[in-house]
Amino acid sequence: MPSAAVSSPNLVLASSSPRRIELVKNLGLKFEILPSDLDEIVNPALTPGEVVADLAQSKAARVQELIQERGGATAQGHHVILAADTIVVFEGDILGKPTDRDHAIAMLTRLVGNIHEVYTGVHVISVNQKEVIAHHEIEVAKVEFRQLSASEIANYVDSKEPMDKAGSYALQGIGAFMINKIEGSPSNIIGLPLVRTINLLRQCGVQIMGE
Amino acid sequence: MPSAAVSSPNLVLASSSPRRIELVKNLGLKFEILPSDLDEIVNPALTPGEVVADLAQSKAARVQELIQERGGATAQGHHVILAADTIVVFEGDILGKPTDRDHAIAMLTRLVGNIHEVYTGVHVISVNQKEVIAHHEIEVAKVEFRQLSASEIANYVDSKEPMDKAGSYALQGIGAFMINKIEGSPSNIIGLPLVRTINLLRQCGVQIMGE
Repeated sequence: MPSAAVSSPNLVLASSSPRRIELVKNLGLKFEILPSDLDEIVNPALTPGEVVADLAQSKAARVQELIQERGGATAQGHHVILAADTIVVFEGDILGKPTDRDHAIAMLTRLVGNIHEVYTGVHVISVNQKEVIAHHEIEVAKVEFRQLSASEIANYVDSKEPMDKAGSYALQGIGAFMINKIEGSPSNIIGLPLVRTINLLRQCGVQIMGE
Repeated sequence: MPSAAVSSPNLVLASSSPRRIELVKNLGLKFEILPSDLDEIVNPALTPGEVVADLAQSKAARVQELIQERGGATAQGHHVILAADTIVVFEGDILGKPTDRDHAIAMLTRLVGNIHEVYTGVHVISVNQKEVIAHHEIEVAKVEFRQLSASEIANYVDSKEPMDKAGSYALQGIGAFMINKIEGSPSNIIGLPLVRTINLLRQCGVQIMGE
């Protein structure tokens, strides 16, 4: 833990997700938003945990490259990059973001009346002039949807909420109308498991909520 | 279920809670907000489930009185009143809203590092010129807080978020930073278990999300 005399490093969030931005803001942190420009390609040979660990690591590494390329104050001083990746897993299949309306309807039609898992990988890189240190964690939660009619699914998809979200739903938005039960961390399902994230950031010297 | 020719009744939400208002808005419903003016007095002889059932019922009944007193269109036509009450239970004690800063700190100091339960009672009254029908449900969820330092608790309380909330925290706000895990419905913990609420409202003829 840093002494009071040590200032908190610059935090860089490697994500443009409004949900992740909101979660990090709620921690009272100042940070820069610098999304990676990576395509999220899933390697089918990996387990779900390996997929999110791999993608979160790749996003963090790519943002560190972007920071090096642009130079400037962040590239020189102590900074910490926070990246995450979230997927939905059902019957062994990895469900990412839907490609279109029909894809979202097909995904939700599989998930309703059933329990699925949500995996999030979190990867942090702490960079200063002496060293580069990385830490990562994986978290899993279970989500149970109630049964939905075809018209309920179609109406939900037509709200557009599902379109940019892994598994085609948002826990904290309109999607709450179909969630019977979860087992795990709500912030994990939203896209950034906060308790683990706080631990990782503190290991990198980021000061949060008075410690 | 009503036929397409039957119009949806007027919905009245017997709560001024911004969280409940947001949850009902997300269902795509139009509704009037008419809080009851009841003091939430807990009868210590009741079980937690009985307490929330009793308070939700009292709120709904009081709002029906208010509607009758003012007369007008809602009092004449078919209307449905939706009321809810949420409490936190830990080691057999019922924790309601904190009375001041010290009370909030004392509540959170008990809850951190432990698992507590959240009870919500939902009560609906359907009123038309032929009949008055009431339905109610109770739901329970478990919440596990991580361990927090005294300064983390004090900083969280100083954010003011805990001050108007049962158990002195919000699941969906800054409070997410201390939640390890939940088991149950997130909307229950926020103050209105949506799946049960949708079932109750539909029993009263309220049309939701295309049924």
